[in-house]
Amino acid sequence: MTDSTAHALVEPRLNRRQAAKIRTRQKVLDAARSLFAERGYEPATIRDIAKGAGMSTGAVFANFQDKAELFEAVLTEDMTRLAEVVEAGSTAGDPVRNRLVEALSAGYHSSLDQLPLFQAIVARSWFQPLAAEMRARAATKKLQLAIGAIVQDAVTKGELRQDADVRLLVELIWDSYLSNYRRAAYDNWDAQALSEHIGKQIDVILAGALAK
Amino acid sequence: MTDSTAHALVEPRLNRRQAAKIRTRQKVLDAARSLFAERGYEPATIRDIAKGAGMSTGAVFANFQDKAELFEAVLTEDMTRLAEVVEAGSTAGDPVRNRLVEALSAGYHSSLDQLPLFQAIVARSWFQPLAAEMRARAATKKLQLAIGAIVQDAVTKGELRQDADVRLLVELIWDSYLSNYRRAAYDNWDAQALSEHIGKQIDVILAGALAK
Repeated sequence: MTDSTAHALVEPRLNRRQAAKIRTRQKVLDAARSLFAERGYEPATIRDIAKGAGMSTGAVFANFQDKAELFEAVLTEDMTRLAEVVEAGSTAGDPVRNRLVEALSAGYHSSLDQLPLFQAIVARSWFQPLAAEMRARAATKKLQLAIGAIVQDAVTKGELRQDADVRLLVELIWDSYLSNYRRAAYDNWDAQALSEHIGKQIDVILAGALAK
Repeated sequence: MTDSTAHALVEPRLNRRQAAKIRTRQKVLDAARSLFAERGYEPATIRDIAKGAGMSTGAVFANFQDKAELFEAVLTEDMTRLAEVVEAGSTAGDPVRNRLVEALSAGYHSSLDQLPLFQAIVARSWFQPLAAEMRARAATKKLQLAIGAIVQDAVTKGELRQDADVRLLVELIWDSYLSNYRRAAYDNWDAQALSEHIGKQIDVILAGALAK
């Protein structure tokens, strides 16, 4: 994923001060993303994030309450972007299996350069306050909806059985998708290997739901 | 899971000093397990573990290099015990789907009282040095072998297709099993709810592998 520019966010009617504030916030976010993507969560310090953004730690704290809030903001931006990549990744006319593999393969290809960030996201999702978990779920919801849209479309078209449990299928695909990042982290699998593997997993998951 | 007693480990030929050493080690492990199971990894301190075991921090460090090593020792003990529970949980003659649900349901029932420990195990599995990951895999391997034995048995008996990819099926079942602990952590699902859900997941995962 590439850094987003602040310009897209600046509406013409903002005054100079508001525009500067938004640019500063985005600079902090981009510096935080770089550091999280390089080191993960724990080793990334506010001091180093401030340094990366070329500002004081005070300026960082003027925009974000703490590292956890900063991390959540990065998570939300990145999941929104990844959902767009996944949505755009598949060709509408293809069989559902291929559409899912194309979409999730696009996801792997666009995110593996930020592997420690992904590891940190999943690790934190297992141990955080309930409120933080609910916000994280809202952020990843978009990605699951993108997977869900493909599965639902296949049901509508009659490629999958009318009584297929779309929600359960999406859950299984999503768990497999996430789980595979561990292969990248510990077994050096590249995006190609992950894509082949998710293909096999999807074949198993869909097998019983395919219309005869 | 209940605390194991030191006695089972003490072979008669050990002299008094060796036996005392093993008892001390087990006391530390049991105190650590209690604290990890109550608080998770980060908030559990060596000081509090020592206090729980009724000894000095020095005595803890005489047995374990650091908290990470202590956590790994707890993980290994608990996964061995959980694998035994899972292995004993299913009835040999039952259909493969039921055997898996029985086994994993036994797993949920015996581990939910240690939920924060489980959350910590999964969270750490996403962010740890490669060597630690390999040791953790060795510890959880027993559980996956217990699942694998049930699946393999069903292939051998012709209940599942001869060309079923046992390894892939076990991976999918395992990922679902673990993933469900999040429902317990954040959505207050009890062991019964988790067992019903893993049943649905197993139905989907096995659907294409069932012999016609």
